[in-house]
Amino acid sequence: MKAFMDKDFILETQTAKHLYHDYAAHMPLADYHCHLNPKEIYEDRRFNNIVEVWLGGKNPDGSYFGDHYKWRMMRSNGVPEEYISGSKPPYERFLKLAEALELAIGNPMYHWCHLELQQFFGVYEPLTVESAPRIWEHCNKLLQEDPDMTARGLIRKANVAFIGTTDDPIDSLQWHEKIAEDSTITTVVGPSYRPDKAVNIHKDGWKEYMQQLARSVGKESLPTMQDVLDALVERLEFFKAHGCKASDHGLDYVPFANYTVEQADAVYQKAQRGEKLTVEEIEGYQTVVLLCLGKAYHRLDIAMQLHYSCLRNNNERIFRAMGHDAGIDAIAQNTCGGNIAQLLSALDLTGQCPKTILYSLNPADNAQLGTLIGCFQDSSIPGKIQHGSAWWFNDTKSGMEEQMKSLANLGVLGNFVGMLTDSRSFLSYARHDYFRRILCNLIGNWVENGEYPNNDASLKKIVQGISYNNAARYFDL
Amino acid sequence: MKAFMDKDFILETQTAKHLYHDYAAHMPLADYHCHLNPKEIYEDRRFNNIVEVWLGGKNPDGSYFGDHYKWRMMRSNGVPEEYISGSKPPYERFLKLAEALELAIGNPMYHWCHLELQQFFGVYEPLTVESAPRIWEHCNKLLQEDPDMTARGLIRKANVAFIGTTDDPIDSLQWHEKIAEDSTITTVVGPSYRPDKAVNIHKDGWKEYMQQLARSVGKESLPTMQDVLDALVERLEFFKAHGCKASDHGLDYVPFANYTVEQADAVYQKAQRGEKLTVEEIEGYQTVVLLCLGKAYHRLDIAMQLHYSCLRNNNERIFRAMGHDAGIDAIAQNTCGGNIAQLLSALDLTGQCPKTILYSLNPADNAQLGTLIGCFQDSSIPGKIQHGSAWWFNDTKSGMEEQMKSLANLGVLGNFVGMLTDSRSFLSYARHDYFRRILCNLIGNWVENGEYPNNDASLKKIVQGISYNNAARYFDL
Amino acid sequence: MKAFMDKDFILETQTAKHLYHDYAAHMPLADYHCHLNPKEIYEDRRFNNIVEVWLGGKNPDGSYFGDHYKWRMMRSNGVPEEYISGSKPPYERFLKLAEALELAIGNPMYHWCHLELQQFFGVYEPLTVESAPRIWEHCNKLLQEDPDMTARGLIRKANVAFIGTTDDPIDSLQWHEKIAEDSTITTVVGPSYRPDKAVNIHKDGWKEYMQQLARSVGKESLPTMQDVLDALVERLEFFKAHGCKASDHGLDYVPFANYTVEQADAVYQKAQRGEKLTVEEIEGYQTVVLLCLGKAYHRLDIAMQLHYSCLRNNNERIFRAMGHDAGIDAIAQNTCGGNIAQLLSALDLTGQCPKTILYSLNPADNAQLGTLIGCFQDSSIPGKIQHGSAWWFNDTKSGMEEQMKSLANLGVLGNFVGMLTDSRSFLSYARHDYFRRILCNLIGNWVENGEYPNNDASLKKIVQGISYNNAARYFDL
Repeated sequence: MKAFMDKDFILETQTAKHLYHDYAAHMPLADYHCHLNPKEIYEDRRFNNIVEVWLGGKNPDGSYFGDHYKWRMMRSNGVPEEYISGSKPPYERFLKLAEALELAIGNPMYHWCHLELQQFFGVYEPLTVESAPRIWEHCNKLLQEDPDMTARGLIRKANVAFIGTTDDPIDSLQWHEKIAEDSTITTVVGPSYRPDKAVNIHKDGWKEYMQQLARSVGKESLPTMQDVLDALVERLEFFKAHGCKASDHGLDYVPFANYTVEQADAVYQKAQRGEKLTVEEIEGYQTVVLLCLGKAYHRLDIAMQLHYSCLRNNNERIFRAMGHDAGIDAIAQNTCGGNIAQLLSALDLTGQCPKTILYSLNPADNAQLGTLIGCFQDSSIPGKIQHGSAWWFNDTKSGMEEQMKSLANLGVLGNFVGMLTDSRSFLSYARHDYFRRILCNLIGNWVENGEYPNNDASLKKIVQGISYNNAARYFDL
Repeated sequence: MKAFMDKDFILETQTAKHLYHDYAAHMPLADYHCHLNPKEIYEDRRFNNIVEVWLGGKNPDGSYFGDHYKWRMMRSNGVPEEYISGSKPPYERFLKLAEALELAIGNPMYHWCHLELQQFFGVYEPLTVESAPRIWEHCNKLLQEDPDMTARGLIRKANVAFIGTTDDPIDSLQWHEKIAEDSTITTVVGPSYRPDKAVNIHKDGWKEYMQQLARSVGKESLPTMQDVLDALVERLEFFKAHGCKASDHGLDYVPFANYTVEQADAVYQKAQRGEKLTVEEIEGYQTVVLLCLGKAYHRLDIAMQLHYSCLRNNNERIFRAMGHDAGIDAIAQNTCGGNIAQLLSALDLTGQCPKTILYSLNPADNAQLGTLIGCFQDSSIPGKIQHGSAWWFNDTKSGMEEQMKSLANLGVLGNFVGMLTDSRSFLSYARHDYFRRILCNLIGNWVENGEYPNNDASLKKIVQGISYNNAARYFDL
Repeated sequence: MKAFMDKDFILETQTAKHLYHDYAAHMPLADYHCHLNPKEIYEDRRFNNIVEVWLGGKNPDGSYFGDHYKWRMMRSNGVPEEYISGSKPPYERFLKLAEALELAIGNPMYHWCHLELQQFFGVYEPLTVESAPRIWEHCNKLLQEDPDMTARGLIRKANVAFIGTTDDPIDSLQWHEKIAEDSTITTVVGPSYRPDKAVNIHKDGWKEYMQQLARSVGKESLPTMQDVLDALVERLEFFKAHGCKASDHGLDYVPFANYTVEQADAVYQKAQRGEKLTVEEIEGYQTVVLLCLGKAYHRLDIAMQLHYSCLRNNNERIFRAMGHDAGIDAIAQNTCGGNIAQLLSALDLTGQCPKTILYSLNPADNAQLGTLIGCFQDSSIPGKIQHGSAWWFNDTKSGMEEQMKSLANLGVLGNFVGMLTDSRSFLSYARHDYFRRILCNLIGNWVENGEYPNNDASLKKIVQGISYNNAARYFDL
């Protein structure tokens, strides 16, 4: 029996151990898609206790922050909401979390929590109701007193070379500017361009957002579709000037309806008048926006990330109480692979297809994505079109293995840009370590099983590439 | 090489063997969803031979009974129908079954049959054409002569604490009453409420069923939608009074169209007049029934089971000859996850969401179900919303592993209510043993691989919970 | 650590090694579905170099030939198109291929290429940029000089008993005739009937094809639907007379709209007039063709192969430059399982359902197919309806394992007709070897794990059956 989560955690073979310890573990880390708050990086936030980092809670303005993964887990253990996202004393909440975690055998959170305890707090015993008091004391003391246990310290400890935050096109990027000006911050922090509010013409708040977008480019309003497109591109150029390496689209599904700008303008005017749009009209408007931005991404060498197939805010009771990102989202089923193909083909036909990373929340789409990306590769860069790392609910040991096996079967795994955290927490870098162990174990098994030569130079190149070098090349870090 | 199906069958590690032999194997068994005939339990049915149990045949009324799993297997081996469900001599049918089974390597039936031979008949050699004569003699002798080889004896032998049968709302439950009154039957046998005929307004026989439903509540007819709902709830209360712990819905797909009772009444009147309904009307009527019953389930603390995505009676030739459940069903593809979310959200919004167990016949839906359940958990009971055990065609070693891994990845495996047989046979309890071995092996591998601590108290709690205790808590046994 | 791809490649257990080396490896091979050119077999084509076999290139008429699998892999490595399908010197193209292959860890092409090097060229070292010059010299010398390294020689070396090519109904089958007349060719080469151009009433070229079809039966035109059906059946009988064992349909999805011949005739006339058809009309026409042909297949004892769920020619830029089969296809998502059931049921109802092999390109359909086939089995032949071997993008180690596990779980694996190459290359027979190793390993693991008895007679029958004997029985070779 292997010891619980020791230094060879996940690593089943000698080759896996060698690849991880000698190559993967030392690589810096490019977290090219996350939801960290750049203000907290700049201000070097310090935390009062481990529950504040792990569970979060209510902000002064009534909104909630925290880890919806852990909220779900606790709800699934029958924990009352006041211990989860609510006002119970932090220590009591910690005990409830420990109790739930003990039953969550096989859940990635079990591993994430313990990797975080090991790597950031030096805690190597399992978190249980019994050990919880000791661990609580130990972690809180470090968080409160250790000069390296702040936002910046945690980033340094994790050897993070690049952070890609997620930002609205109208964002002033003031915190990114401050970070860039501060020579004591050696990690590069770039904004990512996420124009969902402009794309979602059919959702609440779109009309108000159009006014904000207008103001962000110094205008009173955006009278036409072309004005919207111009504003979005102007903001993208502003982002580029602030180190933007990637965009991000969170789509229910990838639409495609081949409208002209004129047709989209008719939809735009209709929406501005508050009239109800047809599905085709919505998709036509969205397609025009996506094509315009896709070409701009290509021109500015910004990677386009498309995330889709999430069913959001499913529990109306909790949504009314807590808003978005409350742990009430699920995997959707969509058949939009043909739309993805048409979108990329339309961009490619004029030589304007940007680097693209595709992520579906539904793992049943893995094989389709693995084959779609192969249709649009070209010689501008190896692995120009990527099947993104196992996303959100799939960010598990088996989920990552499945994504990588699928990618290996259908494409060239050696060009994969690898892991990202997609996280709001400064401790989540442990997931890169989890990913690297899974990667090295997968490759180690192939080699030990005689399925790939034990050629150290090739293996080193592949492992270091997927750990960091490919992302550095892809995002020009 | 491990010996064929010995005492450590499926159990690959020392931890797995310990968990199974020391904890799982001794637990009683809650078979909370099956299709046993309570009359046969009460009358303590005895069988003439193993073919009568394993293959069944034709009833005096011309209908067929038996094991459509085995029928399919034999048809897939080119066996003529008269040996499968027909009139050939039982021994000849047994030989044909043995011949097919030998080629069905990797099929769960291979394991089920041999587990049944081991556990109920003490037969430990493989069933082949060569061994068939010996096994035939041996099993039939036991079935005909051993006082413990009757319906009740088999149930006792399997240590069954609770049986949940499947019953129509109009059922008199007379056999459940008789069983409850018979103090020699220590196993609790409760009815489950299955109102499919009332829900399926668009299927043959609905109108006639409405009359039967009316009579079951002492009325001549049900003039309005509200009368239908009242009748269904009245019958549910009658079931509750007879020990009903769960309902069961067999749906083509989970519908959701948010109709009022008034709107549904218009559909109801239209259907009563024999007019054709639109899909939306059908779904509107069904949604009103499901919401009404869901609230009643919640009030009466009855678990709601939703089974969906089966494509039934696909072979018209066989269907005409043999009717339903003739081994001609298949897995469907549906995209009704959003409907499930809306249904549960509508119930949850008023605090009336019952305990719910979701089962899709399509294993590609596993991940969606694993995420949907997490959206509706609350503090009323741990694991209130469950992703049900691998159903029907998925009730295989790899199918059960996949369902449990998915549940572990996305929820809290430790709260899983575990296995059920869904079977018509008194021998099928061997499948609980199969499930427990697979469970212990899965957990054993995690522990031996250092992915979960070797903490015996936690492991015992998890294994005994999933084997029996969680179901006992969930169904208040 | 196992040596790289040695004689026990893929074979993890003693049982696997025994089953492979003693049984599977010696069986002849029925490649019942491929895209070899019968002219090249008859003329005993010789190749100039390994790049001509592996990558192909441009034909004199401007069309392209070659291996779109490898094209995709090279594009995914950022290789410029002129090295992939273009005019760069063969040796430079070979180096680019070697470079890409080294990064394609886990890709089946890595194994296919090395199996081909081993089995046809005696090369046992890995192909790398370093070894490429040696391998280039060695292979080309053999191809140019060895009398056995021609089309016929490669087929002999691979012990191929039967080749089923893929042919248009209007094909003269002249090369099949010449092959049949040549007693020096011991491999049987039969045509397969692929009437896609007649089925695809909605695609470019259909109208022109109808004229060609008319001429192939000695008519000027086909005035009615019935004439079309008669012509198709006449050509099928011509194919049968030339040794046709199977048909093949490449469908976007399997349609079903229960039209009469009269209704289909109305659609036919409309299409002949160049009017736009509705989806239902297209499906109605197609259903009538499929039902008519299905009955003819049944009468003539020809197996019906249905391949579906491919999204073709996704990259418009490359499609315009290179045409079909350029490496720009992907996996589609369809929910046509119900249509498949209706189609087979309609044929079965009158006792005219032919032997049928179902292939979906989407592996998420595996479980559905595994259950659909069980609904239509009968006593005419064991395994009458087959879930076809893992197709195209799924033709990987894990893809084949998944298909066989699914089939084993849901049907009778022992009756599986096994592997086919679907290939355009004379070297692809190595994939049968790959398949046999995976099969023996899967079965070996079951036996060594105590899940199936170590009964050598049964295992031999199963392994030799799936390797060759079942296909020989199924196709009456």
